[in-house]
Amino acid sequence: MSAHILLIDCEDDKGLIYLITDILYKLNVNVILNDEFVEVPSNHFFMRTEFEGDINEQELIDTLTAALPKGARIRLNPKKNKEVVVLATKEHHCLGDLLIRHKFNELNANILAVISNHKHLQSLVGSFVIPFHYITHEHVSREQHEEAVKKTLNIYQPDYLILAKYMRILTPEFTRAYPNRMINIHHSFLPAFIGANPYRQAFNRGVKLIGATAHFVNEDLDQGPIIHQEVTHVNHRYSVKDMSKAGKEIEKLTLAKAVQLVFRDRVFVYGNKTVNL
Amino acid sequence: MSAHILLIDCEDDKGLIYLITDILYKLNVNVILNDEFVEVPSNHFFMRTEFEGDINEQELIDTLTAALPKGARIRLNPKKNKEVVVLATKEHHCLGDLLIRHKFNELNANILAVISNHKHLQSLVGSFVIPFHYITHEHVSREQHEEAVKKTLNIYQPDYLILAKYMRILTPEFTRAYPNRMINIHHSFLPAFIGANPYRQAFNRGVKLIGATAHFVNEDLDQGPIIHQEVTHVNHRYSVKDMSKAGKEIEKLTLAKAVQLVFRDRVFVYGNKTVNL
Amino acid sequence: MSAHILLIDCEDDKGLIYLITDILYKLNVNVILNDEFVEVPSNHFFMRTEFEGDINEQELIDTLTAALPKGARIRLNPKKNKEVVVLATKEHHCLGDLLIRHKFNELNANILAVISNHKHLQSLVGSFVIPFHYITHEHVSREQHEEAVKKTLNIYQPDYLILAKYMRILTPEFTRAYPNRMINIHHSFLPAFIGANPYRQAFNRGVKLIGATAHFVNEDLDQGPIIHQEVTHVNHRYSVKDMSKAGKEIEKLTLAKAVQLVFRDRVFVYGNKTVNL
Amino acid sequence: MSAHILLIDCEDDKGLIYLITDILYKLNVNVILNDEFVEVPSNHFFMRTEFEGDINEQELIDTLTAALPKGARIRLNPKKNKEVVVLATKEHHCLGDLLIRHKFNELNANILAVISNHKHLQSLVGSFVIPFHYITHEHVSREQHEEAVKKTLNIYQPDYLILAKYMRILTPEFTRAYPNRMINIHHSFLPAFIGANPYRQAFNRGVKLIGATAHFVNEDLDQGPIIHQEVTHVNHRYSVKDMSKAGKEIEKLTLAKAVQLVFRDRVFVYGNKTVNL
Repeated sequence: MSAHILLIDCEDDKGLIYLITDILYKLNVNVILNDEFVEVPSNHFFMRTEFEGDINEQELIDTLTAALPKGARIRLNPKKNKEVVVLATKEHHCLGDLLIRHKFNELNANILAVISNHKHLQSLVGSFVIPFHYITHEHVSREQHEEAVKKTLNIYQPDYLILAKYMRILTPEFTRAYPNRMINIHHSFLPAFIGANPYRQAFNRGVKLIGATAHFVNEDLDQGPIIHQEVTHVNHRYSVKDMSKAGKEIEKLTLAKAVQLVFRDRVFVYGNKTVNL
Repeated sequence: MSAHILLIDCEDDKGLIYLITDILYKLNVNVILNDEFVEVPSNHFFMRTEFEGDINEQELIDTLTAALPKGARIRLNPKKNKEVVVLATKEHHCLGDLLIRHKFNELNANILAVISNHKHLQSLVGSFVIPFHYITHEHVSREQHEEAVKKTLNIYQPDYLILAKYMRILTPEFTRAYPNRMINIHHSFLPAFIGANPYRQAFNRGVKLIGATAHFVNEDLDQGPIIHQEVTHVNHRYSVKDMSKAGKEIEKLTLAKAVQLVFRDRVFVYGNKTVNL
Repeated sequence: MSAHILLIDCEDDKGLIYLITDILYKLNVNVILNDEFVEVPSNHFFMRTEFEGDINEQELIDTLTAALPKGARIRLNPKKNKEVVVLATKEHHCLGDLLIRHKFNELNANILAVISNHKHLQSLVGSFVIPFHYITHEHVSREQHEEAVKKTLNIYQPDYLILAKYMRILTPEFTRAYPNRMINIHHSFLPAFIGANPYRQAFNRGVKLIGATAHFVNEDLDQGPIIHQEVTHVNHRYSVKDMSKAGKEIEKLTLAKAVQLVFRDRVFVYGNKTVNL
Repeated sequence: MSAHILLIDCEDDKGLIYLITDILYKLNVNVILNDEFVEVPSNHFFMRTEFEGDINEQELIDTLTAALPKGARIRLNPKKNKEVVVLATKEHHCLGDLLIRHKFNELNANILAVISNHKHLQSLVGSFVIPFHYITHEHVSREQHEEAVKKTLNIYQPDYLILAKYMRILTPEFTRAYPNRMINIHHSFLPAFIGANPYRQAFNRGVKLIGATAHFVNEDLDQGPIIHQEVTHVNHRYSVKDMSKAGKEIEKLTLAKAVQLVFRDRVFVYGNKTVNL
């Protein structure tokens, strides 16, 4: 018997849960978990249902589409690991954490390959017996580099990309190819620091907290829907290097939580925000 | 138009949400918020629904009772402040926090009175213009003392009792009179310390965390269903007094969160645990 | 026997602790607690010493000044409550928390009076039997209003001002009169939101954390040395109002911790940061 | 120029910092970091000093011994990685985390080898090119098994052992061979659960927090000095499996923090507690 996750979001209407559960009920499937949420000011309805049972996927989608308000977004995913490619640069902390979780099947994802514009992480990736593609950005234009990356991605056809400290600014063309399917992590400060060396700025300003934000990437750099955020306490005893280290720890944790939310089909993107059921 | 909160829990069955939302749908009420949860191993279903609309309460309960599996527990509460009496002894931290939240209507409760077996907190309570009943436990038996407390409680007929550091052991007779309606707070340690002066034991053991547990009171002292728990970090620089102070801060916070959960009708008791929707 | 707290900061030099403890040793005082810290890149030395014993304050300061590197900052404070005036506007959450902690002598401070540009908090303050000064800002210029506030402050001659959600922008003249003696609290977001209604912006952006920053006030609005920061987790279920409420909770906690650090003479300001020993 | 860490603890006495810094001052070494602490009720003094400079180690120890109160414990460690052997059983979460931190030199330790009574983790360890010793406990007595482990340990002569979910009860003989040099991690609950399957007990009791404790191992099982503790929030939506997973995450984090504290020579054991400077 197969398991599915059904994600629906649409304008709210009286009786929606009734309508949806009625359809599932008549299909005789076994609902394992059901969560829903209505965002009040926008009056938008979100529902996530895990169920088991033999269904015709297209038929279910058609039935739901006919029954639900116009514009309803319906995703029906078989419950299985996502196919993922990780992009990284030189820093190992996020990638290493993902690889070890992957090795023990904790990610709900298959890491198909790692692509990097540097060779630093090749041996790490190799030790986990995962393909590593070194695609340098040197001596080529941004577009040419991205073209080469895309070519490699085409081999794997991943569901999602994880930017595990991938330190390249992506063109809008590239980001548009993975709408809500590209997950990035970056450090976050209170207050925000703009410009170079944010950890030095944070040190000079004596911040008491360092955070990280995992988000989907859209065309506005670092402005996409936030998936997860965490912080950690620091104090005057933290050197710039200690702060940077604390920042990496919290980035690692935050990214791991975010990808697990996404890969369990628990994340809806709505406007520029996420609803995580 | 009146607002209600409907709390249902029963053995899970296919189509329960459908069934319940169908009933509400036909009553033409407006569902504001709907949360449900099925505990998997026990296969027990929980649902909390906020709705607005003119209904006949008894009629709705009857309809639900007829439709739901046998043994279903149905609570239908008008959305309004709970009536509450607080019991305290000498410590002010929890009581003071409750009183100030109450003054600004943050508790979803009306504090009708405070009862104490000491006079220490009389002026605090008085400054909030709330009746204070001093009922000494001296020179009387436990039963006589509880009898006097009950007599005072009878004046107010509260929905809930909050034990805000009430340092009296209650008889089973007393606790049975308020099933899942009496909320207590106590400190919690990792590891647990049994016996007198737990903060000194915690200090001697060099614990790095101090916690608090808010729970419903049942006949087994401090063993009732947990509503909320919090911890705070401590270290070797904390004296016994500092640890005790940190413990009070965390007790205060934990109790405040717990009572707000309960008074918003977000808490189900199931077996010896809570489900907080 | 009197107790003092000695706070020294200066350029670091070999043997500074030796030098300072030698001076105290020869005065035959009893050192209770000693903390020091050297900030590495700036090579700046900080030392905080609690001691008991009969000393001539001026003599000790003179001896230390002669012995320490040029430019050393020496503060010698008798261990006693600070004299404090609180400024507030309409919101009660921070003020209420301070008042109740004050009532039970948890603040290391005497709240001499509360000044507000509105009457909303008068009854709250009155119930704690503390003078409340209503000084409206209407129909007067900013300078005239501040003049009136200063006149009231002159009655009390406070050591510190607490801005407990005082929603007035202060002139540089005013802030200069209380260098590192005026403590403010404000909400903090990741990312930062500029402009009106930050909680609505936070809601629209789907932030997962809400924070607060307590800082000394200097001439740059909200840019003074940070004393303490805290955050709390929020999620999509939080309405704008819920987020605002969570923000108030965390502001209250953060301010309470900050003022306790300051009033225990644990805070050094160095450049635009604090070192909290 | 070599770097050292000097750890001193002894009965407190007037002028101890003066005395110690005087000795270092006269050796013309450069103090990088200096922390000290006096535990008040016991009147016990702790001091940790990082310094750079060419010294004769034995000479410094002799000078200090002569100058300090009788019974003073003096540790003078060159600032370098500790030599470590990890013992594990079947669970990978702690070991995997240590190995990846080790690979990128974040542990302040060299992992010389991993010993396990099962083969499950062999490939993980192998992928990091670290010796893996499988020493089965089957068909031998506890003493014989420990003898075999000790024989392997003798090859490596480690400074410290890390028990990364090593699920064997150790004999007092074994633990006595590594006084305050064997670090263990275990889950911690509020309240504590005794007996088999604590996560099921935690689930049945509806706990809202799951924690972990890293401690030195002494002869009383799980009762040694606590080095570090952390907790994580859980709720009714966590299945037994989810709780166990959350527990593993927090164990991993807690152990990583603890070993870093120990391997940076920041931990004093005093009585049955630790002081972490």
